[in-house]
Amino acid sequence: MITFKILSVGKNKEEWLETAINLYKDRLKGTATFTFIWAKNDQQLEAFALKEKFLIALDPQGPMLTSEGFAHFLEKQWMEQGATLTFVIGGAEGLPSSIREKAPLLSLSKMTFTHQMARLILVEQIYRALEILKGSGYHK
Amino acid sequence: MITFKILSVGKNKEEWLETAINLYKDRLKGTATFTFIWAKNDQQLEAFALKEKFLIALDPQGPMLTSEGFAHFLEKQWMEQGATLTFVIGGAEGLPSSIREKAPLLSLSKMTFTHQMARLILVEQIYRALEILKGSGYHK
Repeated sequence: MITFKILSVGKNKEEWLETAINLYKDRLKGTATFTFIWAKNDQQLEAFALKEKFLIALDPQGPMLTSEGFAHFLEKQWMEQGATLTFVIGGAEGLPSSIREKAPLLSLSKMTFTHQMARLILVEQIYRALEILKGSGYHK
Repeated sequence: MITFKILSVGKNKEEWLETAINLYKDRLKGTATFTFIWAKNDQQLEAFALKEKFLIALDPQGPMLTSEGFAHFLEKQWMEQGATLTFVIGGAEGLPSSIREKAPLLSLSKMTFTHQMARLILVEQIYRALEILKGSGYHK
């Protein structure tokens, strides 16, 4: 069982987004769990993030990976860091520099997404990564 | 008024996705309209696509743009091709080569998305692009 902790700023306010994320959470039942932690603002996000032993920061300026590359990246982190992986997603102003200095960066796209959309894309890519590592046909 | 035609394979089956896409469609009322055209399979997608005078193909192997770059790309196409822009999104097997040879390619990410998710990301990026061109603060 692998646990993904996802730190971001704001609130769960879009019902469609929760439906979409729950769809992937349900498919991963027994394999992975997701914990979403919401910070009120950038200062709180920073405080939450800096308490983590290890984290991965989503930042448009980070290196990009293919979905296969992301699967192997996750597998490596999982082996080295243990079964809890924490991701942090920046708010409207991007990530505080203290987080960007501490965490390996990863970019989902050169394009800018809302942080809510980034959350959905991350969950779908985690699902896809676990399917790739399992050798299923989903990712084709 | 600008019209975006989006060709893809499959069906509208996810309610959350329609809700999300309608949200952006509503925000763009009076500025842009979206027409979604569904092909039954790759052969039909190819037939629909090759009837278009001009199209833009979403393909992970195409060049990537930032959201600002995409805004200027859209503006240029709009000036040169007129007020209807057609995008084509490949199915599970990617885009047929006849389409990839005819259309300029554009990649949303190095990662692979479901074509349903690609549709949502495209609509959000079109909304973001129009906000960038208008000079609003949305994209920050």
